[in-house]
Amino acid sequence: MKLLLINPNTSGAMTESIARVARSVALPGTEVLAVHPSFGPASIECQYDEAFAAAGVAEQVRRAEAWRPDAIVLACFGDPGLDAAREASGLPVIGVAEAAFHAASLVATSFSVVTTLTRTCITAERLLHRYGFERLCRGVHGTDIPVLDLEEPSEPLVQRIEQAARAALAKDRSGAIVLGCAGMATLCAELSARLQVPVIDGVSVAVKLAESLVSLGLSTSRLGDYASPPAKPYSGWASDLGWQP
Amino acid sequence: MKLLLINPNTSGAMTESIARVARSVALPGTEVLAVHPSFGPASIECQYDEAFAAAGVAEQVRRAEAWRPDAIVLACFGDPGLDAAREASGLPVIGVAEAAFHAASLVATSFSVVTTLTRTCITAERLLHRYGFERLCRGVHGTDIPVLDLEEPSEPLVQRIEQAARAALAKDRSGAIVLGCAGMATLCAELSARLQVPVIDGVSVAVKLAESLVSLGLSTSRLGDYASPPAKPYSGWASDLGWQP
Amino acid sequence: MKLLLINPNTSGAMTESIARVARSVALPGTEVLAVHPSFGPASIECQYDEAFAAAGVAEQVRRAEAWRPDAIVLACFGDPGLDAAREASGLPVIGVAEAAFHAASLVATSFSVVTTLTRTCITAERLLHRYGFERLCRGVHGTDIPVLDLEEPSEPLVQRIEQAARAALAKDRSGAIVLGCAGMATLCAELSARLQVPVIDGVSVAVKLAESLVSLGLSTSRLGDYASPPAKPYSGWASDLGWQP
Amino acid sequence: MKLLLINPNTSGAMTESIARVARSVALPGTEVLAVHPSFGPASIECQYDEAFAAAGVAEQVRRAEAWRPDAIVLACFGDPGLDAAREASGLPVIGVAEAAFHAASLVATSFSVVTTLTRTCITAERLLHRYGFERLCRGVHGTDIPVLDLEEPSEPLVQRIEQAARAALAKDRSGAIVLGCAGMATLCAELSARLQVPVIDGVSVAVKLAESLVSLGLSTSRLGDYASPPAKPYSGWASDLGWQP
Amino acid sequence: MKLLLINPNTSGAMTESIARVARSVALPGTEVLAVHPSFGPASIECQYDEAFAAAGVAEQVRRAEAWRPDAIVLACFGDPGLDAAREASGLPVIGVAEAAFHAASLVATSFSVVTTLTRTCITAERLLHRYGFERLCRGVHGTDIPVLDLEEPSEPLVQRIEQAARAALAKDRSGAIVLGCAGMATLCAELSARLQVPVIDGVSVAVKLAESLVSLGLSTSRLGDYASPPAKPYSGWASDLGWQP
Amino acid sequence: MKLLLINPNTSGAMTESIARVARSVALPGTEVLAVHPSFGPASIECQYDEAFAAAGVAEQVRRAEAWRPDAIVLACFGDPGLDAAREASGLPVIGVAEAAFHAASLVATSFSVVTTLTRTCITAERLLHRYGFERLCRGVHGTDIPVLDLEEPSEPLVQRIEQAARAALAKDRSGAIVLGCAGMATLCAELSARLQVPVIDGVSVAVKLAESLVSLGLSTSRLGDYASPPAKPYSGWASDLGWQP
Repeated sequence: MKLLLINPNTSGAMTESIARVARSVALPGTEVLAVHPSFGPASIECQYDEAFAAAGVAEQVRRAEAWRPDAIVLACFGDPGLDAAREASGLPVIGVAEAAFHAASLVATSFSVVTTLTRTCITAERLLHRYGFERLCRGVHGTDIPVLDLEEPSEPLVQRIEQAARAALAKDRSGAIVLGCAGMATLCAELSARLQVPVIDGVSVAVKLAESLVSLGLSTSRLGDYASPPAKPYSGWASDLGWQP
Repeated sequence: MKLLLINPNTSGAMTESIARVARSVALPGTEVLAVHPSFGPASIECQYDEAFAAAGVAEQVRRAEAWRPDAIVLACFGDPGLDAAREASGLPVIGVAEAAFHAASLVATSFSVVTTLTRTCITAERLLHRYGFERLCRGVHGTDIPVLDLEEPSEPLVQRIEQAARAALAKDRSGAIVLGCAGMATLCAELSARLQVPVIDGVSVAVKLAESLVSLGLSTSRLGDYASPPAKPYSGWASDLGWQP
Repeated sequence: MKLLLINPNTSGAMTESIARVARSVALPGTEVLAVHPSFGPASIECQYDEAFAAAGVAEQVRRAEAWRPDAIVLACFGDPGLDAAREASGLPVIGVAEAAFHAASLVATSFSVVTTLTRTCITAERLLHRYGFERLCRGVHGTDIPVLDLEEPSEPLVQRIEQAARAALAKDRSGAIVLGCAGMATLCAELSARLQVPVIDGVSVAVKLAESLVSLGLSTSRLGDYASPPAKPYSGWASDLGWQP
Repeated sequence: MKLLLINPNTSGAMTESIARVARSVALPGTEVLAVHPSFGPASIECQYDEAFAAAGVAEQVRRAEAWRPDAIVLACFGDPGLDAAREASGLPVIGVAEAAFHAASLVATSFSVVTTLTRTCITAERLLHRYGFERLCRGVHGTDIPVLDLEEPSEPLVQRIEQAARAALAKDRSGAIVLGCAGMATLCAELSARLQVPVIDGVSVAVKLAESLVSLGLSTSRLGDYASPPAKPYSGWASDLGWQP
Repeated sequence: MKLLLINPNTSGAMTESIARVARSVALPGTEVLAVHPSFGPASIECQYDEAFAAAGVAEQVRRAEAWRPDAIVLACFGDPGLDAAREASGLPVIGVAEAAFHAASLVATSFSVVTTLTRTCITAERLLHRYGFERLCRGVHGTDIPVLDLEEPSEPLVQRIEQAARAALAKDRSGAIVLGCAGMATLCAELSARLQVPVIDGVSVAVKLAESLVSLGLSTSRLGDYASPPAKPYSGWASDLGWQP
Repeated sequence: MKLLLINPNTSGAMTESIARVARSVALPGTEVLAVHPSFGPASIECQYDEAFAAAGVAEQVRRAEAWRPDAIVLACFGDPGLDAAREASGLPVIGVAEAAFHAASLVATSFSVVTTLTRTCITAERLLHRYGFERLCRGVHGTDIPVLDLEEPSEPLVQRIEQAARAALAKDRSGAIVLGCAGMATLCAELSARLQVPVIDGVSVAVKLAESLVSLGLSTSRLGDYASPPAKPYSGWASDLGWQP
């Protein structure tokens, strides 16, 4: 199967790094194409950044149509553009935040999220509510690590995340840690070894969920809310991205 | 005061029509500047459209900085780009969906929403949940009227909305109607007269809420989630929209 | 327009003080009539007090009918008698607690309430739940300041509120402060200046919401729950307050 | 034990009728004193009526102190004055709505409420939410029977309630019926026989709950929210009802 | 009336101890038969234990049919087998956890639970949610006391529970304590005296609720979810416990 | 990997049928061992049946330890014994109800459940609540088909399910169907073809989720709620199933 991996920010280095993680867990027959938007922020650390990223995801879903992917993974913890990608493609589309939440809820009675900037906690909290995990997640914790510092994580940075995770497990009385940033994917194995609880990287889980849905023939419902977008004119730089009748 | 009214879609005619509604309810000293994004969909009828509209709102907030507005109103019922606009401007920013929900909850124990395409109900339902109105709103009802048909509404179209509203009041046991599209603003007076219950147009309410906040000196909190976006590079068509250090 | 401001307790001094705040934010054409019940507690600090205050609000709504108000504001943070006032008058009626919650939710992703006696937190918590703000409000905090001490607030008292507010912002990770007592209205500007976050006084907001609804022609729905009270005999001191057929 | 039964409306006939029901289920050693407020509405059919009734309950709690009751039951389905009565007396105080909801949740996975005026459904719905029964109750249904018609119920009136109950059980997929008015207490046995599901009259249940709490030595907590009211001046007709230091 | 008291674990000593508590609060005419399953764990401290206990409860409900009980009480704080017992018997069946939650919600605006092993908090939390008490209960607190240590509680153990209760009241701002283990029933009077707030033992309350329902003629609804089990073959050690056509 | 598939009822035919479905979707390297309890009901159609089935699941988890499975799937839509199996094994354990809900929430904004006996809807509703899917699922619908009729489903029976599904999609405005019984697994492909929306069989999804977790090295957290059961004596037929120190 062909898996389109969209990194919603415009950092080429992070795109590659995430792609490596995805390929490392994919089945032998899974081909991964990793792309990022042609515009927008180098990292996504607030809702202003996210507004551009969601449009960038929509753009890349359209641009990649010719490649004929079987499924799509969105590799930013805010799941920007998730609904747009489902409408536009009709394919299975998995966001890494939702993927991580689903997995965490299968291996513990409750979990905690450890993320980057404290200000992004609100995004995670809203997603938890939308997806229904607001009770299973007992806390979202910021570390105030800038996202791009994760491109080449130092030992002090890893320790900072480790300590935040330990504090979260104790304070929240939870049993698993969700890493709240696609850029933390490369640290998952190390943190699992140190913490000795399930540590969940949404990128890896999203790849497996995408493969699972494809293998079961399950795809985005076209009945109702996720039907193809209505045809209409689009203007400006997006003029070729509107839906044609 | 100076009020920036952003129509998130790219229809000039609808921008003007909404601006007229806004000006008709504004205080004498309120100056209204109505704009729309330089790109994107002519109407917003699905989440794919909305992804572009949110970026368009973010763009217009930045482009209008030179005009030095005192407050911003976003005139699309999905409130696209609301958080981005708050972060980027630090001004009072009011979405027309939230405005309508707030007003409805002040004049009735519960309300119903009558909107355009049935597929957009999911957007209203998610907003109701995010804002906390999921119990006060007892139903969201689609009419499957295309948004652009509202530019010059015919009598049969008005009757269709009227009938949907009557059915909603009866089925939901509710006491007020929220019009679920900024394009319905021009019909509010007529529908109020016919239905004899409060009929709420979010555009009008948003203007009054914006004026109220400005007069009280209340503006978007800069502590925490709505602080200014972190500085970082932006690329592509959005390269001048990133936050500078 | 004519605005009836009902202070639900029987303190004449506090009635005047609240009236001054209301007049200071009202539009030039808004006339404010401030009244209080003819009976009941000098301050409202528990649910026993509130039971009398709600009946007092109902009494004053009836007594003021001859003045023909356009809207009513109830100036006690428990919003006592709110529903009764809506049924009895059919006018726009705004409670200061709901007003403050609505405003806070427009300027921050979440807010905290700082109130007087800790035992009144339960009242605020129940109102937050009824109105739908239980998720947007992240904490209600008592200071154990007696309500009547607010009539002439000393600097130590202001500092006590300020410190409670700072602690709340930090603990709750919130972005705005709601003052949980109408008697704190006079402190709003000072606390805003000190805290540098939106500090919200419900009296001021209620006045602007009342003006906004009146200007938009929106009033309490008469369909269903808020219809006029059924006619029936009333006895005792309230014998002239029953609804006549 | 001595049980104070307060009928919050001022109908002497209904007070007697409810007292008979209470006595018929009380233990041999339980003495029932039935009273009603000295003022206010002859029946409680809206929130305006209820505002007076809550103050009337508070009045009667104080007036009956000399009788030295062991527990109090409030016999109106809106549970008016419940918190005030708990604060003022420190005794076990049971409202008939809460009593009925508790019992219903013990004998069925879900229940339906059948009440009088449709406009009072909002009161039941808010109580269900406050007490936590909003999921266990699957529907609140009005019959638009005036409360005072229940003083001498005719067969057609009984049939109307019976039919509303049957419709509710089918539509709500529920297993028990809560009678949503203290005035329906006399019909409970007849309706149980006809419907062959648990039909719950809150007056009877409240008496048993009050006896149960007294026998177990459980009374209203004096720690925190239900402590005695703070001392303060009361004025007007209520001048002797304030708390003395 | 005849009350079947099922201790879901297999400790004979605890069965006797709980029976003594039950008899001490029962009405003179109430006969208590105390039994425990013929198999399973000596104490219930995790969900693995509980799986066996629920089957054991079902077994004992069937085995006791010949005794013709009028009501059943299940004396383990996880309420294992509650639904099965209702279906199988059609009698009033009360679990001690639900009983305690109901009572606590009648005497305080909120309560805290103090239980044995911290790992059992999840069970209490899920029950609170199922029954609708998730808002009225403000905290569930483990003491990590093994259940069987409660058979002969020492003073240090009592102090540990007392201290956990004091900490819970302060941290949760609650007004009553629910003892989260049937084995704590014997400590209720002592802890009440020390803490001076309502301390609630579910065993005692369950007995009174069972007596109350029986005296009111209320029993498990046979309409819908709690109808008799469908007839079908059962195999293995349970072969005589299936429902016969 | 080695997958233990436990059919919680004692029907050998249904165990085989479910095993075939599981093997048909498993990866080439996945070995499936299908077992059922040594005791209990031939089908699970009420909560009495489920009490035995949960103990049966616990029994089989222990009996299969020697086979050294890598993951466990529980093939009954009530997910009986799920927590017990996680505690006892420490392996990834997936229930088919949770599996189906997770998958449905990834391919549609909302879904409906179509199940067997109407009385089992309550079980699905409680699971939806526990797992957090109570908003994403818009309806649970019974067909009153006995579970064992699904062993050899006739065309009229398939049509009955199909029609219930069509009615659910329309009434609930949902986009996907969850089959609410493991016995419906064999009908999934046929119903998908007829309904043209995602039709989800939990058995298939559970197999893929189990494989996914194993491949990612994610297993049940041993911190806190899902730690190994405490050691203690077990008696009766279960005497060899207790945890040894």
